[in-house]
Amino acid sequence: MLLVAMCVVLLGCLQAQELPGHVSVILLGATGDLAKKYLWQGLFQLYLDEVGKGHHFSFYGAALTEPKKGQELVAKALESLSCPKDVTASHCAEAKDQFLHLSQYRQLKTAEDYQTLSKGIEARVQQGGLREAGRIFYFSVPPFAYADIARHINSSCRPGPGAWLRVVLEKPFGHDHLSAQQLATELGSFFQEEEMYRVDHYLGKQAVAQILPFRDQNRKALDGLWSRHHVERVEIVLKETVDAEGRTSFYEEYGVIRDTIQNHLTETLTLLAMELPDDVGSSDAVLQHKLQAFGALRGLQPGSAVVGQYQAYSGQVRRELQKPDAFHSLTPTFAGVLVHMDNLRWEGVPFLLMSGKALDERVGYVRVLFKNRAYCVQSERYWASEHSRCLPQQIIFHIGHGELGHPAILVSRNLFRPSLPAQSWKEMPDRPGLRVYGRPLSDFYAYSPVAEQDAYAVLLSHIFHCRKESFITTENLLASWVFWTPLLDSLAREVPRLYPGGAENGDLLDFEVSGGQLSFSQQQLEQLVPGPEPAPWPSDFQVLRTKYRESPLVSAWPEELIAKLANDMEAAAVQAVRDFGAFHLALSGGSSPVALFQQLATGHYGFPWAHTHIWLVDERCVPLSDPESNFQGLQAHLLQHIRVPYYNIHPMPVHLHQRLCAEEDQGAQTYAGEIAALVANSSFDLVLLGMGADGHTASLFPQSPAGLDGEQLVVLTQSPLKPHRRMSLSLPLINRAKKVAVLVMGKAKREITLLVSRVGQEPRKWPISGVLPSSGQLVWYIDYEAFLG
Amino acid sequence: MLLVAMCVVLLGCLQAQELPGHVSVILLGATGDLAKKYLWQGLFQLYLDEVGKGHHFSFYGAALTEPKKGQELVAKALESLSCPKDVTASHCAEAKDQFLHLSQYRQLKTAEDYQTLSKGIEARVQQGGLREAGRIFYFSVPPFAYADIARHINSSCRPGPGAWLRVVLEKPFGHDHLSAQQLATELGSFFQEEEMYRVDHYLGKQAVAQILPFRDQNRKALDGLWSRHHVERVEIVLKETVDAEGRTSFYEEYGVIRDTIQNHLTETLTLLAMELPDDVGSSDAVLQHKLQAFGALRGLQPGSAVVGQYQAYSGQVRRELQKPDAFHSLTPTFAGVLVHMDNLRWEGVPFLLMSGKALDERVGYVRVLFKNRAYCVQSERYWASEHSRCLPQQIIFHIGHGELGHPAILVSRNLFRPSLPAQSWKEMPDRPGLRVYGRPLSDFYAYSPVAEQDAYAVLLSHIFHCRKESFITTENLLASWVFWTPLLDSLAREVPRLYPGGAENGDLLDFEVSGGQLSFSQQQLEQLVPGPEPAPWPSDFQVLRTKYRESPLVSAWPEELIAKLANDMEAAAVQAVRDFGAFHLALSGGSSPVALFQQLATGHYGFPWAHTHIWLVDERCVPLSDPESNFQGLQAHLLQHIRVPYYNIHPMPVHLHQRLCAEEDQGAQTYAGEIAALVANSSFDLVLLGMGADGHTASLFPQSPAGLDGEQLVVLTQSPLKPHRRMSLSLPLINRAKKVAVLVMGKAKREITLLVSRVGQEPRKWPISGVLPSSGQLVWYIDYEAFLG
Repeated sequence: MLLVAMCVVLLGCLQAQELPGHVSVILLGATGDLAKKYLWQGLFQLYLDEVGKGHHFSFYGAALTEPKKGQELVAKALESLSCPKDVTASHCAEAKDQFLHLSQYRQLKTAEDYQTLSKGIEARVQQGGLREAGRIFYFSVPPFAYADIARHINSSCRPGPGAWLRVVLEKPFGHDHLSAQQLATELGSFFQEEEMYRVDHYLGKQAVAQILPFRDQNRKALDGLWSRHHVERVEIVLKETVDAEGRTSFYEEYGVIRDTIQNHLTETLTLLAMELPDDVGSSDAVLQHKLQAFGALRGLQPGSAVVGQYQAYSGQVRRELQKPDAFHSLTPTFAGVLVHMDNLRWEGVPFLLMSGKALDERVGYVRVLFKNRAYCVQSERYWASEHSRCLPQQIIFHIGHGELGHPAILVSRNLFRPSLPAQSWKEMPDRPGLRVYGRPLSDFYAYSPVAEQDAYAVLLSHIFHCRKESFITTENLLASWVFWTPLLDSLAREVPRLYPGGAENGDLLDFEVSGGQLSFSQQQLEQLVPGPEPAPWPSDFQVLRTKYRESPLVSAWPEELIAKLANDMEAAAVQAVRDFGAFHLALSGGSSPVALFQQLATGHYGFPWAHTHIWLVDERCVPLSDPESNFQGLQAHLLQHIRVPYYNIHPMPVHLHQRLCAEEDQGAQTYAGEIAALVANSSFDLVLLGMGADGHTASLFPQSPAGLDGEQLVVLTQSPLKPHRRMSLSLPLINRAKKVAVLVMGKAKREITLLVSRVGQEPRKWPISGVLPSSGQLVWYIDYEAFLG
Repeated sequence: MLLVAMCVVLLGCLQAQELPGHVSVILLGATGDLAKKYLWQGLFQLYLDEVGKGHHFSFYGAALTEPKKGQELVAKALESLSCPKDVTASHCAEAKDQFLHLSQYRQLKTAEDYQTLSKGIEARVQQGGLREAGRIFYFSVPPFAYADIARHINSSCRPGPGAWLRVVLEKPFGHDHLSAQQLATELGSFFQEEEMYRVDHYLGKQAVAQILPFRDQNRKALDGLWSRHHVERVEIVLKETVDAEGRTSFYEEYGVIRDTIQNHLTETLTLLAMELPDDVGSSDAVLQHKLQAFGALRGLQPGSAVVGQYQAYSGQVRRELQKPDAFHSLTPTFAGVLVHMDNLRWEGVPFLLMSGKALDERVGYVRVLFKNRAYCVQSERYWASEHSRCLPQQIIFHIGHGELGHPAILVSRNLFRPSLPAQSWKEMPDRPGLRVYGRPLSDFYAYSPVAEQDAYAVLLSHIFHCRKESFITTENLLASWVFWTPLLDSLAREVPRLYPGGAENGDLLDFEVSGGQLSFSQQQLEQLVPGPEPAPWPSDFQVLRTKYRESPLVSAWPEELIAKLANDMEAAAVQAVRDFGAFHLALSGGSSPVALFQQLATGHYGFPWAHTHIWLVDERCVPLSDPESNFQGLQAHLLQHIRVPYYNIHPMPVHLHQRLCAEEDQGAQTYAGEIAALVANSSFDLVLLGMGADGHTASLFPQSPAGLDGEQLVVLTQSPLKPHRRMSLSLPLINRAKKVAVLVMGKAKREITLLVSRVGQEPRKWPISGVLPSSGQLVWYIDYEAFLG
């Protein structure tokens, strides 16, 4: 099926390029703003470019308007068509005349209208003695109209065999993953994937369209540069000065991320970050590599973005949408987003995406900033300003506007002299005094287009030439929504920072990366919009020290509790390594320790990991690589960020001889033997435990007596929850430890915490109550929510 | 013994500070340059500082010169003593008078001279009715004189019980690790460790001496900043304008690394990089943490440094040392060195050490440059110049000279306002128009010393106050030489880049970091000094493809050969993962694959590591953590740089039940079982082999028939070399692989390569000749040295 589809595409493409014939272009929504502003002009440009190559065209402007009125509107739209500068006035007038002659208005409202159109096309082809090459339907209509039109086209307007159909769709393509999928499914019932051309007009902007060719033509120079080893950061930016006034009914539904970041900036990002196919001319290869780039995007967290809203926005919404005075919108009009790619090329490189309205300037750009790896021996005043390796090294795809005022590609002169196609890009003259991207323009090899082209004209040509890589495939669209939807959901109730707009914003919106998160550089002192109360700041509170079940208790807000436990663990580790050369640490799985692991991984440089042995307190009977495995969590949150030697890591052998926790495989005995062999007296230096709401700890459950007493050091047990089968250290083994820390966090633990505080040592009812090291020390770490409720 | 020694130190320190008594200072070499320039003045300063606190002093200038002449010389040296600015002229004159009165010259040549000196001191103490506190001997003499003097002091000049002895030693402390150790052993036979104060006068420079106190007093701000997460790089720089003229007899022996980098810059580095002890006032803690910092230094490679020599140098050496006209010195007068620290705090942060003579300016500094993590939303022209988070963030310890002209500590205002001790550091007034470190001075919180102090005065006070952390302990000294000696050895025959000197150097000496190595930014077009011919550049040559033993052969220069093999491996991996979801790769140990591993780790972003299983071809019967283990090499050069899941790594089980390769433990069978369970048909996707000079491959040896045929897939074998016992994949298992690559590199393999090309399949003589995959593909990768000789 896929192969068949691909053949059709290939056929279509070959025909378009090599077999001239008659092409009908039907512009739906021909009297709308987009059509008037860009599309008619783009079609005229297409006509100018292609008519000389033997193609025949007819153009239909279509709308719901009744014929006479529609005719007038289209005629008016066509009046302002213009030719490129290199076309003489007389030739232009002649071409325009011909174009008008080939263009007509059609009311397309009923099924009959579509049938009539199709018959009309057939008749025209026949009359001219032509071969029909194909039909382009351009949907410049609101999305709610898509389904009807699509149905009509599919049932009445498909060309005959041997000719292609292309439908061009304009955003929005849904509002989130679900709605995008629904829309895609619906369209999929009418059109083949290869018939659909979803437009993101950013892909037609000259500087964006040049990203892949630039990477291709400068492979030699970029091969050594285009990776985390050299790239410091990437900025993808779209700043607007206008606000949303007059468009709030649209904007209030979408906001800045859906309006520009999910589509324009994300598409640009993938062009920049994707692995470069050997043949960038192959649409298939490009689309496939782009999709792989989506696959490498690390999931966004709530902390991945900062959002803002210009102060006048809520008032505009109230006015335009008749909202009550008390209404405050939470829709962001500004966002900065930190994106990471989890692959070896880009790991750790921050991609900063930023877009906003009511900012100080209008500009769009992609900026790749390279690490400065040079040391310049001479005093700075001697640096050769253009060539010094100590000056910033950057590559900029300047999409438009800003100080430059036109698209441009800039490469720092201390990097390399880029190669660009001379027929479409020319070196820019210097403009003394002009500083861009922190440097005088003269510091760059700077190129601008030989002729500026509108994005829609570029894309119409690509549609005609079947260059699908400039459009958004269904897979690509859904991958993008899969990436953005969780963030959009988590931002839905976030109060954006208010900003005054324009130059007055000052540095209010500046943001920065820290610990993998994004935050505004300026702390906001007062909350300008009513919203949820911020949580009290942990350091306002003392860590509480008292007793719990007659053992020491440390209680605090989560952040401080984790910090304290991490510090205590490091101190224990340093001590053990100093005294005995090794630290044997047994860790529990579950969600509570995740924050602890992160704290240990990022904040504890003195932790003697090279001499630490890591053991598991318990494990689920699943393969180690299963996402449910405790070991997997440990690997993701701790092991991959630190340097523990391979042979100091001791996962539980739950998976032996291709089966899970089979008694015959003696995995529990093997683990006990390994412990006995490596850990003096089988006495761990530190065992970290949790406590379940049912009083279980490790994988020792009230319902299952295994491991609560007896000789066995490691046991197989049954959990009431899936996966049922577990392996666990036994209570007797745990109680041999030198130190045991029990970490209990969250409201859900309030009841059991209270209960266990009152009961005696009854491990058969509450296994946790059996934790009492025979000669070691037990410390409880319970956060305020669990302890105070 | 150590405890006893520490008690003595403590006692000595307590006495010095709390129990005033009589202190004798004997300055050996009292008429030399250093004494005249710094030491007498330093002693006078010590006297001024301490005499009011109840201490008594006598000062002896000593030398070999006969008494009358010596007396004159010392008197002349003392004439120019000066007081600090806050001392009135009359008080100064009085103090100077007293100091002169307490100072005398002594000829110290024979054993009797020393005995007489000691008796003189005793007499003086007795006459004054004083208690002797201690004696300081300052060795301002050439190192060849050390031993004699030390012997005399030890045998004749030790003070009585209850008083301390301190000997102060001046560099050079040896020429490399061996000579430093010899010198240390020799001195150790005369003095206790705690009696020796090795001077590195950099540790007395005010800005350097302030590094630890600064880190301590600004802990709160620095805690979150002082690590690889925030620091971009560290520069430690000492630039001189003077050259070595007149000192070439010394310089020619030492060169710039021994003269300034091994000592001054390295000491400074450790102060900056060490973990901060809780109590920076504790000498013991500081010295111990410093030593740990040495332990974390990653070994230097030949590529860790660039060296230069000013053009006039060889001529100066020829003149001063009467060398023939053809003599060209290889001694570097300039060096840049890239240092890395292998710990979690600093991993990946480049520490650039640079020092040179005949440069464009005289300046010394330490510069910590932080990563820019901020994005500033406003156009650059709106940035608040002092506070914008987008401007450079740096902390600079300006040691001296340069544009500032005096010591200073600078902290970018967009970082934090530092805390400095007000009695010794004051805020500097702005100097409009002055740019330092790339920014206007006003961008920094800038501090200078309240009173400038000479380093020797600072250190003499520290000696008096027993502050050993300002001096180089024997352990510290040897650790430094252990670090530097391999680089010095490897540079001994390296031809330094010639530079004209001064501002004319231009950017000739600029260097940069790339791939963990340092290189000059400018390619040098002509070789200015005769030296060994450079090796031909690999890419000048074609990769040679032909046949070897009737299988495909790829031959090339090493670099290209490795690149080709790495590409082929990646292609095989991508293919296997696409077709079967996993790639099973069996790797050999040894040295040849190291370069391959590095290539794979740094250059192959498309390698599907997450789906690759790594197996061992063979292993030595040593624990996995043993440096001799093949697995250990794999871990160091490959695994720690990539992300292979833990459970995809399959070391050979040579170490079971606390013993190595015991037949009863069935490790070989276990490994075979693991292979059978995970690798379809036990057929690896790729096996990488080497070839020994005796024709062995994997751990299959001519002398040992195991594994050459038969059913067993994994076998225990005997190597003729230590460690003898090995585990190995068998020939039959190897020959089941889909692809086998044999990598052979280096001249040492020339003979066997020739021999094996001619023999048939005789695995009992040459196991490698038995490699012939039954249905897979064999490819030989042999470099030109092994193939062409």
